[in-house]
Amino acid sequence: MRIELVTIGDELLLGYTIDTNGAFIARTLAADGVQVVRRTSCGDGADEIADAVRGALERTGAVITTGGLGPTADDLTKPSIAALFGRAMRKDDAILEALRERWKARGWPGGLPKANEQQAWIPEGATVLENRHGSAPGIWLENERGQWVAMLPGVPREMRGMLTDHLVPRLRVQGAAAVVRSATLRTTGISESMLADQLGALGKGFDGLSLAFLPGWEGVDLRLTARGRGAEDTDRALRDGVSRLREVAAIHAYGEGDADLAGVVIDLARTRGARIAVAESCTGGLLGARLTAGAGSSDVFLGGVLAYHNDVKTVELGVRAHTLETVGAVSEETAQEMARGVASKLGADIGIAITGIAGPGGGTAEKPVGTVCWAVSHGDAVVSRRAQLIGDRTEIRQRATQAALDLVRRTLAT
Amino acid sequence: MRIELVTIGDELLLGYTIDTNGAFIARTLAADGVQVVRRTSCGDGADEIADAVRGALERTGAVITTGGLGPTADDLTKPSIAALFGRAMRKDDAILEALRERWKARGWPGGLPKANEQQAWIPEGATVLENRHGSAPGIWLENERGQWVAMLPGVPREMRGMLTDHLVPRLRVQGAAAVVRSATLRTTGISESMLADQLGALGKGFDGLSLAFLPGWEGVDLRLTARGRGAEDTDRALRDGVSRLREVAAIHAYGEGDADLAGVVIDLARTRGARIAVAESCTGGLLGARLTAGAGSSDVFLGGVLAYHNDVKTVELGVRAHTLETVGAVSEETAQEMARGVASKLGADIGIAITGIAGPGGGTAEKPVGTVCWAVSHGDAVVSRRAQLIGDRTEIRQRATQAALDLVRRTLAT
Repeated sequence: MRIELVTIGDELLLGYTIDTNGAFIARTLAADGVQVVRRTSCGDGADEIADAVRGALERTGAVITTGGLGPTADDLTKPSIAALFGRAMRKDDAILEALRERWKARGWPGGLPKANEQQAWIPEGATVLENRHGSAPGIWLENERGQWVAMLPGVPREMRGMLTDHLVPRLRVQGAAAVVRSATLRTTGISESMLADQLGALGKGFDGLSLAFLPGWEGVDLRLTARGRGAEDTDRALRDGVSRLREVAAIHAYGEGDADLAGVVIDLARTRGARIAVAESCTGGLLGARLTAGAGSSDVFLGGVLAYHNDVKTVELGVRAHTLETVGAVSEETAQEMARGVASKLGADIGIAITGIAGPGGGTAEKPVGTVCWAVSHGDAVVSRRAQLIGDRTEIRQRATQAALDLVRRTLAT
Repeated sequence: MRIELVTIGDELLLGYTIDTNGAFIARTLAADGVQVVRRTSCGDGADEIADAVRGALERTGAVITTGGLGPTADDLTKPSIAALFGRAMRKDDAILEALRERWKARGWPGGLPKANEQQAWIPEGATVLENRHGSAPGIWLENERGQWVAMLPGVPREMRGMLTDHLVPRLRVQGAAAVVRSATLRTTGISESMLADQLGALGKGFDGLSLAFLPGWEGVDLRLTARGRGAEDTDRALRDGVSRLREVAAIHAYGEGDADLAGVVIDLARTRGARIAVAESCTGGLLGARLTAGAGSSDVFLGGVLAYHNDVKTVELGVRAHTLETVGAVSEETAQEMARGVASKLGADIGIAITGIAGPGGGTAEKPVGTVCWAVSHGDAVVSRRAQLIGDRTEIRQRATQAALDLVRRTLAT
């Protein structure tokens, strides 16, 4: 089953409100086999609404709208779609009564404001979708050819409740057994194009699964999507598909779904009975913040030293003045001494250190902005890396934490 | 000037990615009088792209697309729009050379992967929009009737850079006189309803400006919006409006626009010639990360100690065992000793400490989840606060850093 979404509101076109409703509806319906094939955002004007909904109806005959059901003058969704269906508006006494009751029950002063009475007007022949989460009822309007528009409120909490209460059950009955579900394999430490090369023909999708490459500072996510089969068949195909991708991605794969690399590292360290300490320069605490973002990291993460100033590197972490003078603060040698230093100071099994030039200033010809070194000490061993990271200051810092965590993961995995 | 946006990608229709690009483009262009009148999200298929762009072109003749410019098989934006314009695709040797150079300059192994070569193909007669922020160049395609499509990458950082580099200057020349602009006053340490009470009648907007209250973990932002006047008149009205709000918000106001409280604190400390060190427990590095997020914090921020484990609090920060035993790690006393301890250890003028229970586990009847204490030492003086913060683990940690920074700001401001 194919439908379109029309999200209504000037605030969406001005860009002050990010359209999270659209994503929520799409995700919810896809899991039950209803495919959103297009999403349109239009303004509050009656003509804009009618024009957007008319086009969507012509293409799919099945449309969900959000927004424009409120009590103010710019809420024109109902009359403009009623006109599109050639229906008049009529006052619904039951809705009016419910609105008055609601007003009274809340203990709000005065009677129901005149403005709210507009919410009791609905198109002739429409089905009212009760709103247990707010004041504006939703509307289901359908013509003799079976084309329909479902109008939901724009307030996210109300929209979500009504989607679950009314639309999911209705569409589940009408929809095919075929569902759309996705599974994601997360990789890092390999570029999108190298991954595409390694995947070869698999990169275009396989076994009826489509494959998307989603690159970001965390790495490249591989998302497999299955469409048009039953729920059980879909889940099996996705499991098998992820396994095939895992074989190719090999050591570069660190998790599935929304797994976070910091969580993966914490779990690995816990399994090995190893405790972690961090020494951070250019990332200034970002690595520690990620390692403690999840609950229950306290049995693994001891703490660390933020050595932003060079004096802190020498006094607190024991980095040798000779190292700083000869190869500089941004060097693999310094990173190694920081990692060993913090592990020894805090009595940790694993020390992780990052030092670099996040910019925008501070770069030189030899060490341009983006030059970052990181090191991991594990017992007596220490490994380090140096790289030229891309992006602005924020992204360089994010990529540096991810790279350092990945070095821990690879160290512990072998 | 009226334009339409088409954001391209299956991930947008599946709801796994929230379309933040659309909002950013709309906001940026509105400030220069360019109105986005409709936004459409469509899938990666060539027909879907062509169909969505064709409709948008028919309505406004001016279209910006995002997405589908990458190196993989599902990146079909360029060929499908080229077909719409009746143009063939040709290989651009300059782009290919630039891609190869970029690959080499990064020191990535092997030559440019085959997959990336696709990025060097562009429609006949198109103008290439150089991408200084990533590998995929943008495209400006225009026909003899003056209808145009600007194709930008979907990666937000690249899209933002190219919007500023290329489209804003191009459209500003073509754009109209009446603009929509906003100005924001940022407040913290006061609730939305108390702020509304203090603002009284001003809270409904004034002088033709509309006012929105935007609460979040950073505090409550007050956003003034002016519409439908010339650029100069608009800017003056917004400046005057912000001044009136500032008088009411008084000490609770910490900045305007997208000012970050950490940056405000860094600037205040620099003015006072004071250097900062941090001691973090439940925030695990978040405070240090915020203080170093902006460039040029190194003359003020020395570093700090992440004292996640209690042993680190006693050994590294000199928190007394007696304090931990009697009032516990989450107490104003511990926070005070942590602040003094880190300032003394690193030779800083200002010490900032945070200790608390971010949850979801670890709460008790006396100290439920969300109990956080923070302290600021400044020379010989030390102040501290205790509060019950709301939200999940992430939000409690964010609110804690904001509260600690605000205590520094208020300490330095008086």
